Amino acid sequence: MNNKLQYVRDDETVDDLQLKGLNLIQKKEGFKFGIDAVLLSDFAYIKNKHKVMDLCTGTGIIPFLIYGKYKPECVYGLEIQEDMVDMAKRSVKLNELEGNVCFINEDLKNIDYLKTLDKFDAVTVNPPYKLNNSGIINPNDKLAIARHEILCNLEDVISAARILLKDNGRLFMIHRPERLADIFILMRKYKIEPKRVKMIHPKVGKAPNIVLIEGQRDGGAYLKWEAPLYVYDEDGKYTKEIDSIYWRS
Amino acid sequence: MNNKLQYVRDDETVDDLQLKGLNLIQKKEGFKFGIDAVLLSDFAYIKNKHKVMDLCTGTGIIPFLIYGKYKPECVYGLEIQEDMVDMAKRSVKLNELEGNVCFINEDLKNIDYLKTLDKFDAVTVNPPYKLNNSGIINPNDKLAIARHEILCNLEDVISAARILLKDNGRLFMIHRPERLADIFILMRKYKIEPKRVKMIHPKVGKAPNIVLIEGQRDGGAYLKWEAPLYVYDEDGKYTKEIDSIYWRS
Repeated sequence: MNNKLQYVRDDETVDDLQLKGLNLIQKKEGFKFGIDAVLLSDFAYIKNKHKVMDLCTGTGIIPFLIYGKYKPECVYGLEIQEDMVDMAKRSVKLNELEGNVCFINEDLKNIDYLKTLDKFDAVTVNPPYKLNNSGIINPNDKLAIARHEILCNLEDVISAARILLKDNGRLFMIHRPERLADIFILMRKYKIEPKRVKMIHPKVGKAPNIVLIEGQRDGGAYLKWEAPLYVYDEDGKYTKEIDSIYWRS
Repeated sequence: MNNKLQYVRDDETVDDLQLKGLNLIQKKEGFKFGIDAVLLSDFAYIKNKHKVMDLCTGTGIIPFLIYGKYKPECVYGLEIQEDMVDMAKRSVKLNELEGNVCFINEDLKNIDYLKTLDKFDAVTVNPPYKLNNSGIINPNDKLAIARHEILCNLEDVISAARILLKDNGRLFMIHRPERLADIFILMRKYKIEPKRVKMIHPKVGKAPNIVLIEGQRDGGAYLKWEAPLYVYDEDGKYTKEIDSIYWRS
């Protein structure tokens, strides 16, 4: 591990993903991956011959988790912020995954660029989930970019997925339940049919605060609701289901 | 009660709604109201100055429950099947609610007729929830009409609500979760903004099988997810929440 520290800068940490020995470089003071990335990579249905694209990939947590879980042919991550892509590429070297996990520094609104890429079996995305309708956001704030629709919005993400997916390819998205009407409407608009939804509740009896959605490019209309997932039990500990997602490998 | 039996035919029963002494005439062999009507009337937010319209009202269960719970100024029920409206009108006499609960025998697709009516503060509806895409349905089967989109579909219902509602008036619908994408999309199309959703699960940990949706005519976009409701507990008995809905009066 010692020789690998060449890839890590002073203001960064190396975090153990507890999955096949994988590690991720993150800023000490910055956006750290959370339960969303873990839930989304578990929800995604990926086969080992699949080509996968993760949009809004940030430090690349989702491509690494997906590679670790499913060993697909290749996983790409697309991210507009150059310094994030630089970190993600150094994580590739740290994990010796050159050729398996690749990062692209590009704006997902660059449709002409997206059209030059091969088509993907699956697109994953954990997009910024808050509407950019507050005047108080600092556009240079990395946390704000991760959370608010500053550099791209939901329609940008879904229209990009439309272009990137093969026929019948699948979009796997994690978002907030209050945006579910917008998500369904935009998916239909871009002919990515909502097929499967799973709600995440902080605990039994509480309103859901996270939603997982699977859409299929040009899929037929039938929406399956999965059993909900509860994050914490009555004692405030992770439920067995969450534990099994974290430790599955 | 004896003198009231004049309103009841041999093939009918009188069922106690266990709410303010209200009763409902139903066919012995036919569609009987179930938990949907009870859940919807509880979910609806009705004030006592409100005018309320129930679409696809059938035997009139929802208008009677809403009148019993909220004592609004008046509750109308609209139903296309003449024999159902005849039963509902006899239930009005049985309950001595002439002038408070009224039934109209009309097709909700008759837009010109709907436009002649006053505007409503609230519209409720428990529409047929299955797509009419099976070839095996008997169009004279009352149970099939209640369950399948034979005489009206979701778009007919939502477009009728658009016409009937006052500005900012509320639509309260009960449906099946697998149709929620269709519901959100049609609500936005007819400018009835989805504002509130409540999922009903048969029990903790099971996928939802009923959804309650509130929309607001020309409302602003923000969708609130309520805490879910579980129908049965681990022993197969109604949960306290369901008991409290049934016995609230």
